[in-house]
Amino acid sequence: MDSSSLLRFAGELADTAARITMQHFRTPLSVENKFADGFDPVTAADREAERALRAKIAARFPGHGIRGEEFPETHGSEPYRWVLDPVDGTRAFICGVPVWTTLIGLEHQGRPVLGVIDQPCLKERWVGYHGKDGETELTVQGFHNGGTSDVERLKEAKMMVTDIRADAYFTEDEAAAVGALARQVRLLRQGLDSYGFGLVAGGQMDLVVEAGLHWHDIAAVIPVIEAAGGVVTDWQGAPVRDNGGGGGTLQVIVAATPALAEAAGEALRT
Amino acid sequence: MDSSSLLRFAGELADTAARITMQHFRTPLSVENKFADGFDPVTAADREAERALRAKIAARFPGHGIRGEEFPETHGSEPYRWVLDPVDGTRAFICGVPVWTTLIGLEHQGRPVLGVIDQPCLKERWVGYHGKDGETELTVQGFHNGGTSDVERLKEAKMMVTDIRADAYFTEDEAAAVGALARQVRLLRQGLDSYGFGLVAGGQMDLVVEAGLHWHDIAAVIPVIEAAGGVVTDWQGAPVRDNGGGGGTLQVIVAATPALAEAAGEALRT
Repeated sequence: MDSSSLLRFAGELADTAARITMQHFRTPLSVENKFADGFDPVTAADREAERALRAKIAARFPGHGIRGEEFPETHGSEPYRWVLDPVDGTRAFICGVPVWTTLIGLEHQGRPVLGVIDQPCLKERWVGYHGKDGETELTVQGFHNGGTSDVERLKEAKMMVTDIRADAYFTEDEAAAVGALARQVRLLRQGLDSYGFGLVAGGQMDLVVEAGLHWHDIAAVIPVIEAAGGVVTDWQGAPVRDNGGGGGTLQVIVAATPALAEAAGEALRT
Repeated sequence: MDSSSLLRFAGELADTAARITMQHFRTPLSVENKFADGFDPVTAADREAERALRAKIAARFPGHGIRGEEFPETHGSEPYRWVLDPVDGTRAFICGVPVWTTLIGLEHQGRPVLGVIDQPCLKERWVGYHGKDGETELTVQGFHNGGTSDVERLKEAKMMVTDIRADAYFTEDEAAAVGALARQVRLLRQGLDSYGFGLVAGGQMDLVVEAGLHWHDIAAVIPVIEAAGGVVTDWQGAPVRDNGGGGGTLQVIVAATPALAEAAGEALRT
């Protein structure tokens, strides 16, 4: 596959999603409860955009698989699979806060090779790409910086978690570990959702620690962060990979440098 | 004083601050520590902008007092005083997160009569004004909605606190009270700083609860929220007024409706 036309197509997908999501942002929504026992709003924007992206992909690459948050997986005949989350950060979306993003990832043989993080209100977009020869490429739109910071030590790190409470995304044990880590960093920000990953790719934040993530929350992020010079690992220091989505969730560290990822992982494991 | 020229002047102040702050946003900063025992970054943007605003006010209204976060108070000969915070949310600012705002307030005989909340990255601005005859006026730029929501009950409310932890802005007792309140609302967002007030004025969020605030953090917000149809009280349900800034801080409720403010206050006091 030609990389420049692939990257152009990924950009078109993000444009398509943006047109739909922005029609719904800050307008009255019907917010459904997807799970009876938890708060997981699904907006009309999320579903409409995923439908549109699926249609575009199916037309252009009929052999590709598609996995999205809202609809059942489409299995492909080729070793490529798209991973879609048109509105990552639906709570931010329904609160009118422009830190939700559209996440579009492409795997080749199970490994994420292309990722788009797009924030349409701010017109900020990060695209990361792994070429066949191991080279990586980062394209940034609407943001001053491209590339992660060089922060290696926790005490210099600006860290992000979406919600540090035990009753939000973390278990009690996870919340305790993250709370202890947060006391070692320079500062902690909450409430950024997936926009925080863009801030790490842009060199503004240094570290994101999350748990309870699904593969569609992180697949697109991996190529962006890697192309920006950072690293994505799980809390054990291993690569983050699709766990099949069978109810299990992922613990993730996104860091500006390998040393910082290692320091965060060590702190979380003790 | 003619209200339309006064509102125009307030807009010019916000434009002046925006030009300066945006020159510094997401560029390398020298971040000083204002207090030895805490993290309170003061950016070049904050100081430069406050200097520029003070100069403009002194030139136009030499008899007005000026109180700002960064420099000593200028006492005036007339019953008007400006209250300035060019970068409210300095931690958001240094993390590259566009939820800091410029706050510009004007008091008449100690009562806030004009307020500007401005977010220059998003080009969103809320201006609230109390006229002499008790009428209020809200002007909104760059945001779909004008006016607060009609949410009256906690269980329907989208609530914001900047940081729910006891070691950030809240004492242990305050954190416990806010934590209990947060379990009664529809959802909680953290990390929005003063941008959350704009979201209440714009009908996107319903409730903000904070403590540890200074007068310059809230003076400009009061006319905006009141003109938008909401209410600002302290945790006892009383009006929020300047406490003289002698080390004491303010506990604040900002709510879309009087009933919601009352319900939040009741929950916080029990």
